[in-house]
Amino acid sequence: MTSHFLAQLGTLLPPGRILTDPVDCYAYAYDNSRKIFPPEAVAFPLDAEEIKAIVLLCNAHNVPLTPRGRGTGTSGGSLPERGGVALSLERMTRIVTMDAANRVAVAEPGVINQSLQDSAKSHGFFWAPDPSSAAYSSIGGNLATSAGGPHAVKYGTTRDHVLGLKAVTGEGSMITTGCYTTKGVVGYDLTRLLVGSEGTLAVITEATLKLTPLPEAVGGLTAHYRDIASCAEAIVAVMALPQTPSALEFLDSGSLDLIRSRFPEMVPADATAMLMIEVDGSERYISESCNAILSACRNDGLINAERTADAAALWRARKTLSPLLRDIAPKKINEDVVVPVSALPGFLQELGRLSDKYRIANVNFGHAGNGNIHVNLLVNPDNFPEMARAEQCLNEIFDLVIRLRGTLSGEHGVGSEKRAYVGKEIDMSTMALMKGIKRVFDPNNILNPGKLFL
Amino acid sequence: MTSHFLAQLGTLLPPGRILTDPVDCYAYAYDNSRKIFPPEAVAFPLDAEEIKAIVLLCNAHNVPLTPRGRGTGTSGGSLPERGGVALSLERMTRIVTMDAANRVAVAEPGVINQSLQDSAKSHGFFWAPDPSSAAYSSIGGNLATSAGGPHAVKYGTTRDHVLGLKAVTGEGSMITTGCYTTKGVVGYDLTRLLVGSEGTLAVITEATLKLTPLPEAVGGLTAHYRDIASCAEAIVAVMALPQTPSALEFLDSGSLDLIRSRFPEMVPADATAMLMIEVDGSERYISESCNAILSACRNDGLINAERTADAAALWRARKTLSPLLRDIAPKKINEDVVVPVSALPGFLQELGRLSDKYRIANVNFGHAGNGNIHVNLLVNPDNFPEMARAEQCLNEIFDLVIRLRGTLSGEHGVGSEKRAYVGKEIDMSTMALMKGIKRVFDPNNILNPGKLFL
Ligand SMILES: Cc1cc2nc3c(=O)[nH]c(=O)nc-3n(C[C@H](O)[C@H](O)[C@H](O)COP(=O)(O)OP(=O)(O)OC[C@H]3O[C@@H](n4cnc5c(N)ncnc54)[C@H](O)[C@@H]3O)c2cc1C
Ligand SMILES: Cc1cc2nc3c(=O)[nH]c(=O)nc-3n(C[C@H](O)[C@H](O)[C@H](O)COP(=O)(O)OP(=O)(O)OC[C@H]3O[C@@H](n4cnc5c(N)ncnc54)[C@H](O)[C@@H]3O)c2cc1C
Repeated sequence: MTSHFLAQLGTLLPPGRILTDPVDCYAYAYDNSRKIFPPEAVAFPLDAEEIKAIVLLCNAHNVPLTPRGRGTGTSGGSLPERGGVALSLERMTRIVTMDAANRVAVAEPGVINQSLQDSAKSHGFFWAPDPSSAAYSSIGGNLATSAGGPHAVKYGTTRDHVLGLKAVTGEGSMITTGCYTTKGVVGYDLTRLLVGSEGTLAVITEATLKLTPLPEAVGGLTAHYRDIASCAEAIVAVMALPQTPSALEFLDSGSLDLIRSRFPEMVPADATAMLMIEVDGSERYISESCNAILSACRNDGLINAERTADAAALWRARKTLSPLLRDIAPKKINEDVVVPVSALPGFLQELGRLSDKYRIANVNFGHAGNGNIHVNLLVNPDNFPEMARAEQCLNEIFDLVIRLRGTLSGEHGVGSEKRAYVGKEIDMSTMALMKGIKRVFDPNNILNPGKLFL
Repeated sequence: MTSHFLAQLGTLLPPGRILTDPVDCYAYAYDNSRKIFPPEAVAFPLDAEEIKAIVLLCNAHNVPLTPRGRGTGTSGGSLPERGGVALSLERMTRIVTMDAANRVAVAEPGVINQSLQDSAKSHGFFWAPDPSSAAYSSIGGNLATSAGGPHAVKYGTTRDHVLGLKAVTGEGSMITTGCYTTKGVVGYDLTRLLVGSEGTLAVITEATLKLTPLPEAVGGLTAHYRDIASCAEAIVAVMALPQTPSALEFLDSGSLDLIRSRFPEMVPADATAMLMIEVDGSERYISESCNAILSACRNDGLINAERTADAAALWRARKTLSPLLRDIAPKKINEDVVVPVSALPGFLQELGRLSDKYRIANVNFGHAGNGNIHVNLLVNPDNFPEMARAEQCLNEIFDLVIRLRGTLSGEHGVGSEKRAYVGKEIDMSTMALMKGIKRVFDPNNILNPGKLFL
């Protein structure tokens, strides 16, 4: 990055909105992937015009530009691997419109997911995407990764809840995609093309989001199993019911041990697998559905299944899992594969077999209603043979997932972390087309270069 | 089209699967747009390999190739405007998988929407896209237009119910998009890029579709109004409720007159506007929701609002509207604009004003819950001054729609019919990007050339 470039950048933004001191830049070097790539400068634009000017400048000087929401991504998507400018959207935090009559919100990309929820809630609505990072992650980051959370089993993920976008492409064009209404079929669906594109095609500068009415009430139930096979069988049975739960979370024995370490009373001693199920709607609907779900949960391996008095406690316990895991295995390998629900029993069994084969302890939990399992391989990064076995194990897990008609990532995206594996899932001609689209949006490969594709 | 080309085509498909006699070809010259463009040949492929071979041949000879489902489209999308080959997918009618456990169906593009519904129903599911043409239109056509129907207000449109596609691009690559699971964020969302692309990017050869559990029961209610403003006000009030109806159809006075002509008892004499509302779920949910909706319907202009004993009769009446309209105005101009729900009162009032101003009778009805109104201008094509006034009127209607933050088409798409107006909605830089994407998929502009863009 030349001083000439920096001088030009300085004409685009006032001093308070550019960082160039390496110490300051270092705060923008990491995300939840644990890789570290410091940018050479950080820019804090306030509107699309400023973003466009920065994009054009980067094109003119061939400087990489990496959009960044709040850096909570787990796949390295926001890291400036090749240096250049980190474009932090964190100061574009305006909720432009909260239009309850049309069930629409318009927001700038830096709005925190939770702030949007708070604002929508006062009108009786919520925005359905619910990553566990909702309190910290930005709408822009949610959109760019098509984030989803436990409620995706009923409500879908980010791509199902966005109507339109404003964005600045890698070439510096300002575009407007989609519409303000829930129906609309004029032109190609660029909205969903940008959703999940991980900052490689365009910088999202404003989003028109679809709101959903808050459910009248929420109820929960838990089911504990003696063995994982019975638990997996119950997942399949629950998902075959017409009543779709609003969350269906699975926890394996490793996860339960972690929870026991913190909440000793919570889990029966002989349980090796557990389901946490949530149902929302009217009280009547909840009680009818819970009855149907409780019967679907019943099988020979069931220890107990019952409605929970305190659903919030359940979710608090579930949320502690990731941090607890981090404590016991600082360098866990954390994947979020998806398999068809009916393939879960076989998949979970195979995971156990692979864990034995490669002598790599694993802890698995996740959004079972979507078949989305967080697979965590517990490894010690200083133990080279173990790391090598873990790599092989991971490779076999990915092959297994693809064989079962699953996908390598349900939430986290490719970023840099899964780049090397994308070829397992996407064939060469489809990949070539994606690269062609990248060139249309970003002919000089300025925007988040090197992400998604090898 | 040279005889050399035809001879080559003859090596790709057996004689029974190619038409070249102009009389035969004429059967593939029209759709519901009422334009007529006969193809020079019609090809009936049975699989993706054959389609690829035909696409490559057309590329080699620069012959236009127009995918065709069942030709029920209303915007001319399937018409071979520039001659060449009509690629009829009507013989690819296999439901490859009906996987109830995973709520997934895999189907070839020629499967009729209704056949898929019938097959899914026996497992307790449905495929949510419900164009009124369901009995005649193909899954491929539904996907290529992102079709939607009355239930879109609760369930969304086609793009919300597709997980993945197989397709042959305009260049002849076979691609696989999306996945088999409900979550997945690996690579760009080519699935939804193809949905709604009206056969201009790729030929869809197989679709992996998301199924939805059938509701336990369905209930209906109607509300009649003395004036259109009160009716529009009620639409806004109903859509502000947390209970989303499964259909919310609006009929204006012209529509009611048509219905009266056929079902004289059905509509009160003093009604000039009507709502047909459907709610689905458990019986209990339906009765609770109907009560809430009935109160939202109440205002000074209300004549009566009540639950209907026979919801099916209601829908039969609603479905007669299009054919009845055709009887009274053979060359009606038929649009399907969308405005935000809260803008409906103002929009409907303005439609009345424009009808007076240009002396063009109109009949308006549609999916009010999405703000999607079918605007029909009743014209006599032989009356040139009237046609000229109608064109001006339409132009003003489109400008109004855009001013109200609406879109020019909620269902029918652009095809050739609305091509001239797309610039009102999509700005030049966004359009340039769409054209760039078209070039990536179809560098020789073989696939449905001239559609969507001017
Ligand atoms: C504790 C924890 C729990 C999590 N739980 C979940 C979960 O349940 N579900 C889930 O899906 N994810 C989860 N994540 C991952 C992460 O929070 C999500 O991916 C989130 O959407 C990222 O938002 P962000 O603002 O932090 O984006 P960043 O991490 O800053 O960026 C993510 C990607 O988006 C791009 N980007 C950001 N903003 C823009 C923009 N305006 N325009 C274009 N591109 C942009 C970046 O370039 C990058 O590629 C979790 C992370 C943590 C730390
Ligand atoms: C009575 C009637 C009622 C209708 N009601 C509705 C309604 O409620 N909602 C609605 O949305 N529409 C409606 N329509 C319009 C029409 O039925 C839909 O657009 C339908 O989806 C078209 O399906 P089709 O198989 O007839 O496609 P076609 O008309 O043959 O083609 C439509 C477009 O799709 C492309 N295409 C078709 N198959 C493929 C494929 N396999 N790969 C790539 N491109 C392909 C064609 O090139 C064309 O651009 C109605 C039409 C009629 C006649």
